Amino acid sequence: MPKFIKKRSKAIGLSPGTLVHIGEKKIEKARIRIIDYDEKHIEEKEVQSIEECFPFKETPTVTWVNIDGLHEVEVIERLGEHFNIHPLVLEDIANTGQRPKMEDFDDYIFLVAKMLYFDKEEEETHTEQFSLILGPQWLITFQERVGDVFEPVRERLRKGKGRSRKSGPDYLGTVLLDAIVDKYFSILEKFGERIEFMEDELVDNPTPETLQTIHTLKREMIFLRKSVWPLREVISGLERGESPLIKKPTRAYVKDLYDHTIQVIDTVETFRDMVSGMLDIYLSSVSNRMNEVMKVLTIMATIFIPLTFMAGIYGMNFEFMPELKWKFSYPLFWVALIVVALLMLNFFRRKKWL
Amino acid sequence: MPKFIKKRSKAIGLSPGTLVHIGEKKIEKARIRIIDYDEKHIEEKEVQSIEECFPFKETPTVTWVNIDGLHEVEVIERLGEHFNIHPLVLEDIANTGQRPKMEDFDDYIFLVAKMLYFDKEEEETHTEQFSLILGPQWLITFQERVGDVFEPVRERLRKGKGRSRKSGPDYLGTVLLDAIVDKYFSILEKFGERIEFMEDELVDNPTPETLQTIHTLKREMIFLRKSVWPLREVISGLERGESPLIKKPTRAYVKDLYDHTIQVIDTVETFRDMVSGMLDIYLSSVSNRMNEVMKVLTIMATIFIPLTFMAGIYGMNFEFMPELKWKFSYPLFWVALIVVALLMLNFFRRKKWL
Amino acid sequence: MPKFIKKRSKAIGLSPGTLVHIGEKKIEKARIRIIDYDEKHIEEKEVQSIEECFPFKETPTVTWVNIDGLHEVEVIERLGEHFNIHPLVLEDIANTGQRPKMEDFDDYIFLVAKMLYFDKEEEETHTEQFSLILGPQWLITFQERVGDVFEPVRERLRKGKGRSRKSGPDYLGTVLLDAIVDKYFSILEKFGERIEFMEDELVDNPTPETLQTIHTLKREMIFLRKSVWPLREVISGLERGESPLIKKPTRAYVKDLYDHTIQVIDTVETFRDMVSGMLDIYLSSVSNRMNEVMKVLTIMATIFIPLTFMAGIYGMNFEFMPELKWKFSYPLFWVALIVVALLMLNFFRRKKWL
Amino acid sequence: MPKFIKKRSKAIGLSPGTLVHIGEKKIEKARIRIIDYDEKHIEEKEVQSIEECFPFKETPTVTWVNIDGLHEVEVIERLGEHFNIHPLVLEDIANTGQRPKMEDFDDYIFLVAKMLYFDKEEEETHTEQFSLILGPQWLITFQERVGDVFEPVRERLRKGKGRSRKSGPDYLGTVLLDAIVDKYFSILEKFGERIEFMEDELVDNPTPETLQTIHTLKREMIFLRKSVWPLREVISGLERGESPLIKKPTRAYVKDLYDHTIQVIDTVETFRDMVSGMLDIYLSSVSNRMNEVMKVLTIMATIFIPLTFMAGIYGMNFEFMPELKWKFSYPLFWVALIVVALLMLNFFRRKKWL
Amino acid sequence: MPKFIKKRSKAIGLSPGTLVHIGEKKIEKARIRIIDYDEKHIEEKEVQSIEECFPFKETPTVTWVNIDGLHEVEVIERLGEHFNIHPLVLEDIANTGQRPKMEDFDDYIFLVAKMLYFDKEEEETHTEQFSLILGPQWLITFQERVGDVFEPVRERLRKGKGRSRKSGPDYLGTVLLDAIVDKYFSILEKFGERIEFMEDELVDNPTPETLQTIHTLKREMIFLRKSVWPLREVISGLERGESPLIKKPTRAYVKDLYDHTIQVIDTVETFRDMVSGMLDIYLSSVSNRMNEVMKVLTIMATIFIPLTFMAGIYGMNFEFMPELKWKFSYPLFWVALIVVALLMLNFFRRKKWL
Repeated sequence: MPKFIKKRSKAIGLSPGTLVHIGEKKIEKARIRIIDYDEKHIEEKEVQSIEECFPFKETPTVTWVNIDGLHEVEVIERLGEHFNIHPLVLEDIANTGQRPKMEDFDDYIFLVAKMLYFDKEEEETHTEQFSLILGPQWLITFQERVGDVFEPVRERLRKGKGRSRKSGPDYLGTVLLDAIVDKYFSILEKFGERIEFMEDELVDNPTPETLQTIHTLKREMIFLRKSVWPLREVISGLERGESPLIKKPTRAYVKDLYDHTIQVIDTVETFRDMVSGMLDIYLSSVSNRMNEVMKVLTIMATIFIPLTFMAGIYGMNFEFMPELKWKFSYPLFWVALIVVALLMLNFFRRKKWL
Repeated sequence: MPKFIKKRSKAIGLSPGTLVHIGEKKIEKARIRIIDYDEKHIEEKEVQSIEECFPFKETPTVTWVNIDGLHEVEVIERLGEHFNIHPLVLEDIANTGQRPKMEDFDDYIFLVAKMLYFDKEEEETHTEQFSLILGPQWLITFQERVGDVFEPVRERLRKGKGRSRKSGPDYLGTVLLDAIVDKYFSILEKFGERIEFMEDELVDNPTPETLQTIHTLKREMIFLRKSVWPLREVISGLERGESPLIKKPTRAYVKDLYDHTIQVIDTVETFRDMVSGMLDIYLSSVSNRMNEVMKVLTIMATIFIPLTFMAGIYGMNFEFMPELKWKFSYPLFWVALIVVALLMLNFFRRKKWL
Repeated sequence: MPKFIKKRSKAIGLSPGTLVHIGEKKIEKARIRIIDYDEKHIEEKEVQSIEECFPFKETPTVTWVNIDGLHEVEVIERLGEHFNIHPLVLEDIANTGQRPKMEDFDDYIFLVAKMLYFDKEEEETHTEQFSLILGPQWLITFQERVGDVFEPVRERLRKGKGRSRKSGPDYLGTVLLDAIVDKYFSILEKFGERIEFMEDELVDNPTPETLQTIHTLKREMIFLRKSVWPLREVISGLERGESPLIKKPTRAYVKDLYDHTIQVIDTVETFRDMVSGMLDIYLSSVSNRMNEVMKVLTIMATIFIPLTFMAGIYGMNFEFMPELKWKFSYPLFWVALIVVALLMLNFFRRKKWL
Repeated sequence: MPKFIKKRSKAIGLSPGTLVHIGEKKIEKARIRIIDYDEKHIEEKEVQSIEECFPFKETPTVTWVNIDGLHEVEVIERLGEHFNIHPLVLEDIANTGQRPKMEDFDDYIFLVAKMLYFDKEEEETHTEQFSLILGPQWLITFQERVGDVFEPVRERLRKGKGRSRKSGPDYLGTVLLDAIVDKYFSILEKFGERIEFMEDELVDNPTPETLQTIHTLKREMIFLRKSVWPLREVISGLERGESPLIKKPTRAYVKDLYDHTIQVIDTVETFRDMVSGMLDIYLSSVSNRMNEVMKVLTIMATIFIPLTFMAGIYGMNFEFMPELKWKFSYPLFWVALIVVALLMLNFFRRKKWL
Repeated sequence: MPKFIKKRSKAIGLSPGTLVHIGEKKIEKARIRIIDYDEKHIEEKEVQSIEECFPFKETPTVTWVNIDGLHEVEVIERLGEHFNIHPLVLEDIANTGQRPKMEDFDDYIFLVAKMLYFDKEEEETHTEQFSLILGPQWLITFQERVGDVFEPVRERLRKGKGRSRKSGPDYLGTVLLDAIVDKYFSILEKFGERIEFMEDELVDNPTPETLQTIHTLKREMIFLRKSVWPLREVISGLERGESPLIKKPTRAYVKDLYDHTIQVIDTVETFRDMVSGMLDIYLSSVSNRMNEVMKVLTIMATIFIPLTFMAGIYGMNFEFMPELKWKFSYPLFWVALIVVALLMLNFFRRKKWL
C-alpha cells in the first residue's frame, strides 16, 4: 500500500535549509553519471566523486549530470555549493515528500516531479521523486534509485537523432519530463484494463473481494491524482514563465508536454468517475441479491407455513374431532393443501415475484 | 464499450515530434479529396498522391483538402513539410488520443475535435478524431475513416447556395465544426429518448437490467462529456483569438457555433443529473420492494406461527391432558384460533401494513 | 413531462443562418401587435402583415412590436431584412431551443429568455421562448404563443402611470423582463407549497408515491434551474455592458432586475437542497420501517419457535417416554412454556426492541 | 418552520419602484426613534410623525433615525422624498424578501442584512430584515418589529464611552452590523450545543425522532447559510469600496466586522459538514441494528428449525417405525438434539455472530 | 471532543476594540520571556512585569518577547499602548476564537495561527491560538499556555547556529511558523497511522465501534482543515505582500514555509478522501454481512420447512390414511426427505449461495 505521508520526524526542530534525507534509502551508494554533448561529440561516463563533474559547469557543451540516490546528503551539498544553489532547494531535493513544483531562481530553474513505477513483487504502484535543476548549459537531475524511464532518451542522444543533440539543456529537460508523463500513460493503461475487467466481473459475479478491489482502485486513484494534478501547474508555469533559460523553440515542446499532462489528468478524472460508479453498482447489486434471497425465503415460508399449520390441526389428539373419522377426510385434506398452495403461487405471480 | 484510453505504448520512448499513428486502423488506404472553389467555379476531385494537392497552396481560390485515414503517416509528413506545419502538430494529428484543442501558429490555426457516430452493429457511440489546419486560402482536414457528416456542406458548396462560396476557408471550417456539433445534438436526442423510456420503466418495472442500463447511460455520459467540454474552450478560443485568419464576418458564425456548444454541454449536464437521479430512484424502489417482501413474510409468519404452536400443544401425547377429553374442546380451539388470527390482522391494520 | 431537448433534426445539414422553426407550433397564425407611444399619446393596434409596422422604425416615438407565433418564418425574415438584423439572430429567434443569452450588435441588442407558465390541464410547468430586439426607438418581442404576463405592463402604458411612457424602449424591455422574473417567483411559490406539503407527508406517511413526487420535484428543479441560471449572466451583461442603447437612469432598474434574478436563483438552489434532503429522509424512513417490520417478525418467531419445538417433543410417539405418564407433566409443561416466553420477552426488553 | 420564500403575489404586475410591503405585519404602528449626538451632547426621543426628523438632516451632529415596522409604506415614502432616496431603494426596504446587499449611491450607501432572533414560543429561529441608509451626517435604519440587539450600542452612546460619540454615522453603522453578527454567534452557540447533544444521542440511542431532528438541523443550516453568505460580499464591498462616506479610521472596524462574518460562515460550514456526517452515522446505525435483529432471528430459527423437524419425525403415526419401540430411543433422541444444537452454536461462533 | 465554537457571550454588547479574554484560562499567571540577540551576543530572561521589556523596543538588537497566557488582558493592553498597536489587534489576540489571518499595519505585521498539540490524557488533538506581531527590530508572540514547539528554535538561537542570529525578526517569525507547521506534520503522521490501522480492521472485522472511530476521524479532519486552510492564505499573503518588514532573503524561507503548508493541506485532503472512502466500505461490509446472515437463514428455513411439513402430514390422526399401514412407508418417507433436501441444496448451488 503506497504511503501517503513521509515520516518527517527526523527533520523536526532543524533550521530551514538543513539537509536531511527524508524517505526510504533505496540504494547503497549514490551513483553519478555525466553525459556531455554538443552537435558533434558525446561523452558519457560514471564518476566516483561529485567533484569530477564540476569542470563541466563552464564548458560551452551541454552537460547532463544524473544522480541516483539521495541519502548521501553531502554529495548534494557539495554540488549545491559549486553550482551556487539555494540551500532550500537542496533541502527539497533531499526531502522526498515534496509536491511537484517549479521555482525560477533567475540563474537556474528548479523543478520537482513524481515518477511512477510498478513494483512487480508487491504488485503496487510506487512513486519516486525526480528533481531537476536547469542551468544555462547544464542540467542536473536527482532520482531516488537506479533504474529509470530515460534510457530511450539516452539512446537518442548517443545516436544524435532528431533535435536531441542540436538543442540545449532546456530541450533535454522537457524530453525527460515527457518520458515521465509517458510512463503515467502506461500506468493508466494498466488501470484501464483493471477497471474494464472489474466492470465485467461486477455484472457477472460480485463478491466481497470485488469491493476490496474497488477500494484499492479508489486509493490508487487518489494517489495518482496527488502526483499528477500539481504537475499541471508546474508545466504550465514553465510554459508561461519568462525565464530566458527556456528558449523559444523549446516552448512548443513544453506546450506539447502540457497537453499530455492534461490528457493524463483527464483520464485520471474519468477513471475516478468510473470507479465511483462501480461502487454504486456494487451496492445496488448487493441490494438486488438480498432482495432475491428474501424472495426465496418468503415464497417457501409463505407456502409451507399454512400447510404445516393444517397438518398440525389434524395431528391434535382431541377425542371429539369428527373429521378424523370421516372416510374422505384425508383425500379432501390433500385437495385443500393443493388449493392453498396454488392460491399462494398465484399471489406471487401477481406480485411478479416468480 | 468505448475505450477511455488509447494505447500509446507504441509511442513511448520516441522523440517528441515523431510521427506514429495511435488508434485503430479504420480503413485500408488513406483517401484524399480536394474541393477547390471561389465564387464562380468549383472543382472537386479525389487524388491518389498527396503531392497532387500541393499546387493549390498558392492559388487565390479556396482549397479544401480532406484526408480520410491517419495510419499512412508519410502522407501526413509530406503534407506537413510542404505546408510548413510544425512536427508536433503532425504528431497530434496522427495520435488519435488527443483532447479537443486549438493552437494558433500565426501562419495557420490547428484545431482538434471529436466527431461522434453511432455504430449500429455494436449499438454504441464511437468517437473519431477530426483535425483541421486552417491557412490563409486553404483548409486541410483529417478524419480517421471514410464517411462523415459533411455531405450537406459539400452539397451547399456545389450548389453555391448562401454565403458558402463567397467566404474564405475560415467560414468553411466553422461550418464543418457546426456540422459536427449538430451531430452531437442528434446523438443527444437519442439519449433523451432512452432516458425517458428508462424513467417510465423505472416506475413500472425496475429489474437488475434497468440497473445495467443506468450504468451504461452513465458511462456514455462520461464519455460524451469528455468530448464536449474541452470543445467549449476550443471554440471560445477561436472566437476571442485575434488571428487575422478568422475574418470579422466569420466571427458571428463562430459565436453562433459557441452558443451551440454551450447548449450541448447544458444538455449533457442535465442528462447527467437525470441519470444520477434515476440511480437514486432505482435504489429506493429496490428498498421499497424489499420492504414489501418482508411485510408479506412477516404477516404470514406472524399469523400462523402462534396458530401452529396452539395446534402443537394439543398434538402432545401426555396421558393427563383434561382438555383432550372435553366435548367442546375442538370447536373452542377453532374459536381461539380465529380470535388470535383476527387480533393479528388488527395489529397489522393498525401498523398500516395492510 | 417537460422535454429537455428540442428536436433539431429539421435543421441538421442546413447552412448557418437558415431560418427554420424548431419547437412546437403553438398557434395557428402569427399575431402582430404594435404599441406606439410617447409621453403624450399612445396608439395600440393589431396588424395583419408585418410590413405595416415598418414605418414606425424611423418615428421618434417609442414603438413596441410584439409577435406571437414563430412558425411563420417569413414574417421574421421580412422583419429582419427591414430592421437590418443579422441572419443568425433571426435563426435563434425561430429556434426555440436557445439558452437565455444576450448579444450586443451595436445597432441593437438581442436577448433571449425563457418564460414559464403553468399548464393547468397537464399540471406541469412549461417554458416558452421570449426573444427581444432592442433598437434606438423601438423594441421587438417574439413569443411562441398568444397569452403572456405582460398585460399589467400594457395597462400601465395605456394609463401612462409612473415612468412608463416617459422612458425609452430600454426601460420597456427591462420592465418586460421584470414581469417574466416576477412570474418565476409565483411559480416558485407554488413549488414552495408543494415542498412543504411533501415534508409533512414524509414524516406522517411515506409511500412509494412520495418517492415519485420527490423525483418529479427534482426534475422540475433541474428544468427551472436550466432556465434561470443563464438569465443571471444575461442580465448582468446588460447591466455591465456599455451599450448606449441602455440609458443611465434605466441601469438602476436593470440592477434591480438583476437582484430579483439572484433571489430566484437563491430560492431554486435552496429548494434543490431541500428536495435532496427529502430523498435522504425518505430513504431513512424506509429503512426505519423495514427495521420495525423485521423486529415484529423476529419477536414473534423467536418467542414461538422454541415453544413449538417443546410441544413437538411431547407429540412424539416413542413408547418409552416416562414424562408422558406423569400426572403433573402437563401443568409443568405450561409452566416451562411461560418461563421461556418471559425470558424471551425480557431479552427483547433489554435490547430495547419493545 | 421558517419560510424560504416570501409571498410576492401582491407586488406582481406593479411598476418597478412601487412601494408595497411584502412580509408579515409584525407590529401595529410604525415606531420612530431619533438619537442625535455629538461628542458633547446626546438627545434621544420617540416621534409620532416622520416629518419631525427632517430638520436633523442638515445639522452637523450625527443623527440616527430608527424605524420599527415597514407596513406603513407612506412613512418610508415621505422619508425617501425628503432624504432624496431612489424609489427602488424604498421598494427594497419595504419588501422583506431581500437578499443581503449593499449599494453605493454616491450621496448615501444602502445596505440590507438579516437579523436573526430565536422565537421562544415556536422554538424556531426567525429572520428580520434590517435596512440601513448611511448619509454624510445621518443614519437611517429600518426593522420589521420593535425589539432588537442594539440596546448595548444605545447604552454606550448614552454614556459616551469609547469612540462611539467621537465618530460619525459610518462608525455607528459598523457597530450596528457588528451587533447583528454577534447575535449570529449566539445563535450558532445554541446550534453547537444541539449538535453536540445530538451526537451523543446518536451513539447511545438513535430513534426515528433523531432523524427528524437531524432533518430540522439541516433545514435551519440552509436557512442560516442563506442569510450569512451574501453578508460576506456586502461587508467586503463596504471595506473595499471607495465611498468617502466610510472614513479611514472606520475601515479598520469594517475589516474587523468582515473577519467576524468569515468566522460565522466558517462555523456554519463546519456545522453543515457535521450534520451531514450525522445523517451518515444515523443510517449506518440503523443498518447495524437491522443486522443485529436479523442475527437474533437467524440464530433462533436456525437452531430450532432442525430440532423441530426431528421432533416432527417421531410424531408420525406410521405403524412400522422400529425406533418408536426401542427402549433407549428417547434418551438417544435428546443426545442427538443436543449435538445438533451444539454444532449450530459452534457454527455461529465461527462466523463471529455470537 | 474539540469545540468548534468559542463562547463569545462575554463579549456580546461590548464596543469593538474592547479587550476581553475569550477562551479557556489555561495557566494561572501570564509568563513573559525575553530573548534579545544580535550576531555577537544573546540575552535570555523571564520578567515579572511587562514594563521590563519596553526598553528593548528601541535597541538595534533583535528582541523576541513571548507571552504565555492571555487572560491577563491588562498585560496585553499595556504592551499594546507602548508598542502602539491598534486596539482591534489587541482584541483579536485576547479572543482565541480567531481564524488564522494576517494584517499589515505598515509599522508592524499582525498574524494569527493555530498551534496543534495532542493532549495525552484526553487522547485528543487540541488547538492553541498563536499570535505574532512583527516590528522592525522586535517580535512579540502570544500563546495560550506554557509549553510550545519552539524549544529547538531557542536552542539554535542560543548556539548561534546557521542564519538564526544573523537575520532579523522576520526570519525568526518565519522559523516559528515553520515549527508550527512541522508540528502539523507530526500530528498528520499519527492520523496516517490510525487510518492505516482502521483500513486493516475494516476488512478483517468491522464493528459498530469501527463506525464510531470513522466518525471521530472525520470530525478531527474537519477540525484540522479549519486550522490549516486559512493558514495558506496567510502565508501566501506574507510572501506576496510588499511590506519592507519582510526582507528579501527571508522571502525564500516564507516561500518554503508556504510549500510546507500546501503539503499539509494536500495530506489533509487526501485523508479526508480516504476517510470518506472508509465509510463507504463500512456500509458495504455491513450490507454484505446482512446478506450472508440472510442466506444462512434462508437456506436453513428453505430446506427444513418442507421437510417439517412432510413429517407433519404423517403425524395426523385421520383414521383412514392408507400410507400409515404400509410396511415400507417409513423408509420411503426418508427417501423422499433426502430427495427434497438434495433438490433444495442443488437449487442453492445453482444460485451460487453455497
